[in-house]
Amino acid sequence: MSDIDASKLVIEPTTKPSEPRPNEDLVFGKYFSDHMLEIEWTEAEGWGVPKISGYHPLLLDPSTVVFHYAFELFEGMKAYRDKDNNIRTFRSDKNMARMNNSAARASMPTFDGEELMKCIDKLVLLDKKFVPFGAGYSLYLRPTMIGTTPTLGVHEPDRALLYVICSPVGPYYKTGFKPVSLEATDYAVRAWPGGVGGYKLGANYVSCIQPQTVAASKGHQQNLWLFGEEGYVTEVGAMNAMFVFKDENNKKELVTAPLDGTILPGVTRDSVLQLARARLPADEWTISERKFTIHEVAEKASKGQLVEAFGCGTAAIVSPINNIGFQDKQIPVPCGANGVIGDLTQTVADWIRKIQYGEEEFADWSRVAK
Amino acid sequence: MSDIDASKLVIEPTTKPSEPRPNEDLVFGKYFSDHMLEIEWTEAEGWGVPKISGYHPLLLDPSTVVFHYAFELFEGMKAYRDKDNNIRTFRSDKNMARMNNSAARASMPTFDGEELMKCIDKLVLLDKKFVPFGAGYSLYLRPTMIGTTPTLGVHEPDRALLYVICSPVGPYYKTGFKPVSLEATDYAVRAWPGGVGGYKLGANYVSCIQPQTVAASKGHQQNLWLFGEEGYVTEVGAMNAMFVFKDENNKKELVTAPLDGTILPGVTRDSVLQLARARLPADEWTISERKFTIHEVAEKASKGQLVEAFGCGTAAIVSPINNIGFQDKQIPVPCGANGVIGDLTQTVADWIRKIQYGEEEFADWSRVAK
Repeated sequence: MSDIDASKLVIEPTTKPSEPRPNEDLVFGKYFSDHMLEIEWTEAEGWGVPKISGYHPLLLDPSTVVFHYAFELFEGMKAYRDKDNNIRTFRSDKNMARMNNSAARASMPTFDGEELMKCIDKLVLLDKKFVPFGAGYSLYLRPTMIGTTPTLGVHEPDRALLYVICSPVGPYYKTGFKPVSLEATDYAVRAWPGGVGGYKLGANYVSCIQPQTVAASKGHQQNLWLFGEEGYVTEVGAMNAMFVFKDENNKKELVTAPLDGTILPGVTRDSVLQLARARLPADEWTISERKFTIHEVAEKASKGQLVEAFGCGTAAIVSPINNIGFQDKQIPVPCGANGVIGDLTQTVADWIRKIQYGEEEFADWSRVAK
Repeated sequence: MSDIDASKLVIEPTTKPSEPRPNEDLVFGKYFSDHMLEIEWTEAEGWGVPKISGYHPLLLDPSTVVFHYAFELFEGMKAYRDKDNNIRTFRSDKNMARMNNSAARASMPTFDGEELMKCIDKLVLLDKKFVPFGAGYSLYLRPTMIGTTPTLGVHEPDRALLYVICSPVGPYYKTGFKPVSLEATDYAVRAWPGGVGGYKLGANYVSCIQPQTVAASKGHQQNLWLFGEEGYVTEVGAMNAMFVFKDENNKKELVTAPLDGTILPGVTRDSVLQLARARLPADEWTISERKFTIHEVAEKASKGQLVEAFGCGTAAIVSPINNIGFQDKQIPVPCGANGVIGDLTQTVADWIRKIQYGEEEFADWSRVAK
């Protein structure tokens, strides 16, 4: 059975090249680069020859399992242009490992992540002109795997397609950070122990829109997912949630929910935790992956011990939070001296951005496409 | 905003008609009739003109939301040929209502179910030759709705496609009923309170394959879904679960899990319950929708008070159960005098089949396509 083999990559350049849009026109995930990468898999043959060709629609039988049983999973990554015009990706090994975990849980084929990354490197180099110039701009990469067996039978797909498309994107906050107000959702639950909330499956997303719509109807920008009668804080919309508390002695705690299977293991989440552990003074900070509840957040806020809070993920890096509506109360969340972004939120955003754009090295987190 | 309007239906017959396959070649969901129904929806215009045309592949941008965020839902129904060569559907109003509930939960558009059924009637009449002759044979209908907005943004789709495809199918058990052995799954959960297990979304299916694979590796045909530390019995694979217990006085209880949001509200489930309440003698039977646990099943079995058990759903009507593996024990489940199917299982299968094929009337459950 063959695995993905980047040395076999076939490149068929588009005959209709286009010009990148100006930065100010970019909308997340709406416009795409000239090319896409595709690799077909069959149960009989394994992974086929990787192919890069012009961006094109997919032609699929209406019975294809991806339309009926959600055999689909994806990753979110970005390619960044550094000051020397190299194209870099950030901790792509984490994305490859997570994509394989998702595939295994979804009864779809796994693969050699480094071989896929070599193909993705070629794709971003071929479409290099679509990697925007400018701070905060990048080429969003969307590796996707779908089950392509044409049958209504509910079983493991015997065919799949792995593809990667690329969308030039601007900074999440075009005019600087903008803090968000959240509604804590206690009537719907994103994930459950023994469920698939720890995998990046499409199945986790469809059910998240309704609570966002409800939150928006009450004037909030996002929802905060709670779990259980205890009201454990789990995620913010489609991002991981980070809170900063302090105690009576002003010792601070950066706290986020543990990876118990109900939380997406975010690459940004892990980066924040690793950088905080490496760089924040241990006598002033505790870095915790532990369960905490909305009631603890409310209590800390009432005591003046809630320092700041933010969502984190690939799209925004960080998303500062300034308010949480919970039942009939509002919990104000401090947002730094400027009311826009807390100190730690700004600090980790800078740390990560510098590594992403190759301004600073940290471990082997930045990969230059070759 | 326009709703679905069957009076506007456009029919473009295929230019390449095919001949139905012989009954013995039919495989569930693998072959399809000559035509399909499609109705497009946009946020701006509502539902467009319904169109029946030749069965054809779908052409979709690789960024389409159905591939990434599982904006997809479906129904399972069948069309049956009666002795007068009429084509009948069974309780289609229930499918239409459930499809609308699924759509609302998935942030997709709802519609007038009766108008869709009028279009489906025309589809099955146009493809009447594909409705097989013979007991247990039928034309499986798959109404499907997918989100078709081409964007990676995670929000409500502003475009959708509703389509219906038709697959001629044979009886689930070609050589008569065959009882199945189940593995009770306690390491994964299908659904949870506040989740979407009560809706027929594709998102509920992808995660169910792995436990089936595990069950199969231990020699079982299906898995039995449990919930919670209590071990509540919820569903059998992708079917509702029905158990028959008796007490010390030989009074029998037909029991199935209640519709608390974690159970798919099956049309066959509801039909079994309604028919049992109408036709079984009340002094001999109790019909219960209540929580019950695998431990109660094991205890009943050990006392000789487990009478029979079956899964029920549109594909099989009933699926008799003869064994449940739970942790390191096997719970043998009686399966009638013949060891193949319990008395009540056979009785409800006959009741439902007769109504489906128009041999018997019950309420307004059978609809003749006109």
